[in-house]
Amino acid sequence: MTETVDRQVSFIYEPIEADLERVVQNLRDLAAQSGQLRDDALLEHAVLSGGKKLRPAITLLASRFHPHQGDAVVVMATAVELLHIATLIHDDTVDRASLRRGRATVSSHWGQDVAVMLGDYVFAISATFVCDTENVRVIRRFSETIMELARGQLTERFSVHDWKQTIQDYNERIYNKTASLFCTAAGSGAVLSGAPEPQCESLRNYGYNLGMAFQIMDDVLDFQGTEHELGKPVGNDLLQGTLTLPALLFARRYPDDAVLRRLREGSRDAADLKSMVDQVRSSPAMDETLAVMRRYQDAARTSLNVLPAGRARESLAALTDYVIDRRT
Amino acid sequence: MTETVDRQVSFIYEPIEADLERVVQNLRDLAAQSGQLRDDALLEHAVLSGGKKLRPAITLLASRFHPHQGDAVVVMATAVELLHIATLIHDDTVDRASLRRGRATVSSHWGQDVAVMLGDYVFAISATFVCDTENVRVIRRFSETIMELARGQLTERFSVHDWKQTIQDYNERIYNKTASLFCTAAGSGAVLSGAPEPQCESLRNYGYNLGMAFQIMDDVLDFQGTEHELGKPVGNDLLQGTLTLPALLFARRYPDDAVLRRLREGSRDAADLKSMVDQVRSSPAMDETLAVMRRYQDAARTSLNVLPAGRARESLAALTDYVIDRRT
Repeated sequence: MTETVDRQVSFIYEPIEADLERVVQNLRDLAAQSGQLRDDALLEHAVLSGGKKLRPAITLLASRFHPHQGDAVVVMATAVELLHIATLIHDDTVDRASLRRGRATVSSHWGQDVAVMLGDYVFAISATFVCDTENVRVIRRFSETIMELARGQLTERFSVHDWKQTIQDYNERIYNKTASLFCTAAGSGAVLSGAPEPQCESLRNYGYNLGMAFQIMDDVLDFQGTEHELGKPVGNDLLQGTLTLPALLFARRYPDDAVLRRLREGSRDAADLKSMVDQVRSSPAMDETLAVMRRYQDAARTSLNVLPAGRARESLAALTDYVIDRRT
Repeated sequence: MTETVDRQVSFIYEPIEADLERVVQNLRDLAAQSGQLRDDALLEHAVLSGGKKLRPAITLLASRFHPHQGDAVVVMATAVELLHIATLIHDDTVDRASLRRGRATVSSHWGQDVAVMLGDYVFAISATFVCDTENVRVIRRFSETIMELARGQLTERFSVHDWKQTIQDYNERIYNKTASLFCTAAGSGAVLSGAPEPQCESLRNYGYNLGMAFQIMDDVLDFQGTEHELGKPVGNDLLQGTLTLPALLFARRYPDDAVLRRLREGSRDAADLKSMVDQVRSSPAMDETLAVMRRYQDAARTSLNVLPAGRARESLAALTDYVIDRRT
């Protein structure tokens, strides 16, 4: 499977390799300014932390349907990656995560307080990059995306162990915390390339649906595999009280389940939670969740139909498979 | 003294009362959207926390030298206040402060993690307000200000107990953490009113110098009064390792002081720090610091000279006294 994924990845990234390298160079230039913070390693550690560069790749690919000049798209792709990095810094702080991509997180190495400040700094740098596009519509959408990301995190926090939440609540939340940025990544690439509005709209739809599929897949993977493979307990979200689609579909299907009833009545008992994880993962709710995910995946693919055929479209189509295959 | 300050305040705010009320109404409208976060009290608690509204008042006053129409200035003043609020939320998180203006801080009431996310949310809301001005120059300057605020916090953190830092380092730091936003508050009011560039430049200078004076005064006040008046130990900054102008001027004046030498060599001994606080506060470094502060105060006043005389200019001039008198 790894070999297939590797082939997928090089196929997807091939048409934008040179521009993605310019994005990485922008990050390197930024890391070289670490001295301004009186700590040479901090900014470098944060912005050169690797990762797949999935979101900037989407921005670059989405710009390839309309001929254009200038640096605005590469600048935007850099901003999108920086925003993602800032989000991870604060997420790891909030979650008290010690490792990310096999390296110490900023909060575990420098402390939570530095991580709060550095996250703010990287958020602001990302916004400054967006301003360089000089496109007020894109800048505004970017600010709204930061709002949505924060709102997604906050509502997730305030919904823990809340079995009264609806699937609509879940959808809104994963739009905010994940699909919003995918949507902005694709839409801004299209807008900045000067593409006509219907194309921009299709690419925003693509980003939205891809992001929803991506997050639902994440939520499925949390229930699959073993603790050893995941690096965290199976069903960790549910154990922590975060109710994702598999759990919510289980609750809809088996409203009278005895364990569910206890959890609904406020039980935080570890054995109840563990038992609910086991029930959910072996229930038809898993397949139901995958079916929902596939509908988003199909919608992402379908929204590409109105775009000119060619290498960029093929890459975006391949991406809809990749985000699903990546860890299964 | 309180009565004098009260009279100062009503004189300063009088010409912009109606517009400042519109800023407060914008904050109330925002607070009413708390439900979106699934916690009705959180956003309200954060954005309706009172305070003097000093920064939005500066934006409004700075717009009064050029006739203009539309809402851009009020929108900008709202953004400036929201940015200040976001900064306080994260500062209180980092400092683990339990009270602000006599009320529980977000981090003490809802937890540090919620405070991190809420701060991000309010930062983003402020940026969205700025986008409503549709002025790319103002939007860009606003993003840079957020960067500078975060950089000021980070460099302060990385400079604790560092007696090798220079007065230039201190100046850069207080520009970033305080004067930058004052400068932006004044400059954006001027730019959005459509004032000619020399006026904008004068108002930016005014904001810069006022902000520097404001922060130096804060750093002086930290050494004055009693623990009872301050609500924290006298010399708290120095006790925590934050070296401000009084301490740095003391070190320049008495390079061979025995306690200083021990601190330079890395002592974190509480008795040494306490003894250094006592020495600094009774030394001529206090008057030297006040003299530096007064030079910024004078520069702020002088930069008003090129502006049309009138009620707005009188308020801005009175503000240069107020920020000094406020707690002495």
